[in-house]
Amino acid sequence: VTVAVDAGGADDLDGVATAVAGLAADGHRLLVFGPADRMGAARAPGVELVDAPVSIAKDPDPVRAVRAHPESSIVQAARAVADGRADALVAGGTTGAALAAGLFHVKRARGIYRPALAVPVPVPGRAPVTLVDVGANDVVRPEHLVQFAFMGAALARTVLGIARPRVALLANGTEPGKGRDEVVAAHARLAGATSELFAFAGNVEGFDVLTGGADVVVTDGFTGNVALKVVEGTSRAMIDLVRRAATSSARAKAGGLLLRPALRALRDEIDPEAVGGAYLLGLRRLVVVPHGSFGAGGWRSAVLAARDGVREDLAGRTHGALEAAGALRRAGASEAAASV
Amino acid sequence: VTVAVDAGGADDLDGVATAVAGLAADGHRLLVFGPADRMGAARAPGVELVDAPVSIAKDPDPVRAVRAHPESSIVQAARAVADGRADALVAGGTTGAALAAGLFHVKRARGIYRPALAVPVPVPGRAPVTLVDVGANDVVRPEHLVQFAFMGAALARTVLGIARPRVALLANGTEPGKGRDEVVAAHARLAGATSELFAFAGNVEGFDVLTGGADVVVTDGFTGNVALKVVEGTSRAMIDLVRRAATSSARAKAGGLLLRPALRALRDEIDPEAVGGAYLLGLRRLVVVPHGSFGAGGWRSAVLAARDGVREDLAGRTHGALEAAGALRRAGASEAAASV
Repeated sequence: VTVAVDAGGADDLDGVATAVAGLAADGHRLLVFGPADRMGAARAPGVELVDAPVSIAKDPDPVRAVRAHPESSIVQAARAVADGRADALVAGGTTGAALAAGLFHVKRARGIYRPALAVPVPVPGRAPVTLVDVGANDVVRPEHLVQFAFMGAALARTVLGIARPRVALLANGTEPGKGRDEVVAAHARLAGATSELFAFAGNVEGFDVLTGGADVVVTDGFTGNVALKVVEGTSRAMIDLVRRAATSSARAKAGGLLLRPALRALRDEIDPEAVGGAYLLGLRRLVVVPHGSFGAGGWRSAVLAARDGVREDLAGRTHGALEAAGALRRAGASEAAASV
Repeated sequence: VTVAVDAGGADDLDGVATAVAGLAADGHRLLVFGPADRMGAARAPGVELVDAPVSIAKDPDPVRAVRAHPESSIVQAARAVADGRADALVAGGTTGAALAAGLFHVKRARGIYRPALAVPVPVPGRAPVTLVDVGANDVVRPEHLVQFAFMGAALARTVLGIARPRVALLANGTEPGKGRDEVVAAHARLAGATSELFAFAGNVEGFDVLTGGADVVVTDGFTGNVALKVVEGTSRAMIDLVRRAATSSARAKAGGLLLRPALRALRDEIDPEAVGGAYLLGLRRLVVVPHGSFGAGGWRSAVLAARDGVREDLAGRTHGALEAAGALRRAGASEAAASV
């Protein structure tokens, strides 16, 4: 397995280089695109480092940028995957550029309506909960949500190691009739389908996104983006509040000091770098998008996740399960025809 | 000002009776509907207690239940408001029953497309942030979102005492072009409108719903319901995690004990009973929906909020500001015609 790595969107190029060198030392093969003069540490046996100093990670219009800059690190990396020089892509930084480069060069997988962006959210004491879609599709049809369920389940199985993931639909009530029309329709289809890949767990409300027992929570990209960011924003706000409470008096300060190691252990348990970042699903090859702020540990997780996705045949399993369930987009059916 | 109170959905009838007696002692006038034999404490000068033992609060089909049970406490209370015997309605328990009874009896205000459900979320160190809609409308049009902005701002001003609320649209990015089509269109209209009632603050992402400086966050009822419940679920989960961390070792236990008073003060700052519950906006009269689990303090807050809404002319201010902005539904325009 060879993983292509685009370092163009990394805040911490030293971190990427360190991760790459460590992975190579462990026997992994990597094809790395980025500013070579700033990534000297990545020169190691097993690593092919391609000098690609142009980055489009900060471009506000990623679709235009991907078209206009074939020399950019992400486009070169995506092309390497398209050409078969690598088996999966790790492209850190912005999901917009990864989505654009993925669609243009890696291309949509056969039978998939729409690629989706999935994020596994770490939860203490249990496996991560994968939210899908978190931003690739503002508006969806029922058949899109059905496919997202299969795509998310295949990710949870192959990359996160959950044997038979429980998949739920995000809604404003647990009853099957709750939610927008497309949610109600997707509920009916998923309740009627049987798949070896996952168990359908019905609707989950916002209260229980991370605590309701579901391994994969399926929604449209607008709602999913809001939900994911509300989880992050609320967690951060709560941590700030506890920190502030722990400095509000001498007594509270003493308490905070005593509690610090336990809270630090908790923070380690919910380290976002451990889950590798976001995953672009529904393309011919897996694309992993570590956050631009990730250090060496996060980049290492992302490359290992990409490797697992290839080894465990994420794309093939998704296709096989969709085919068995009759949920593939029919060959020749255009998006326009399917939407009628 | 007379406030009608439906106690049919209260878990704690003693709490309602205590709140009512206390409010009456302070000189407030109340018209209370509920099981009179279980609310003896509510008998006081200034209180008219009507025996209405039938409750539809637990009915899974509130629209049907409101039609089928004119003798139920909520329908009697809503009719008292419609008839002018009371000026506002406090109906605890389920928002579904309050919405159905409100629409049938209190009725939609002139020029309003759709009533919406608003919830002020308490935030430590600042005024509450009002989310609107959190469940009355799964799907919305731009003109609905525009009206929600005015309705939410009027609530924040009259009931929460925020002089000129900052109003934002919930979206998956801060740029004006981000979000579903109806969000983009509402953004353009709100950016172009000027109102004395509020200042438009653009888009807010999920990260910053409670911390971005907006006083009112406007969205459709599906996304708003998910966002509100994710805030609640994540807050609860974080508190549980801190509590668990504080019992993980002898050292952590000692720290937890020392920190307890500071955390308790924090909890008091985010007491949901202090904001009165949910608010049904866009009807001829204000409807406040305290949570079924509220005690005397929560019911007292709800009645005082309803009183403030009447005194400060919430409905009139909303209508006036919408009229000044040309955002009222035209007389005679049907929903069907408007949707073409």
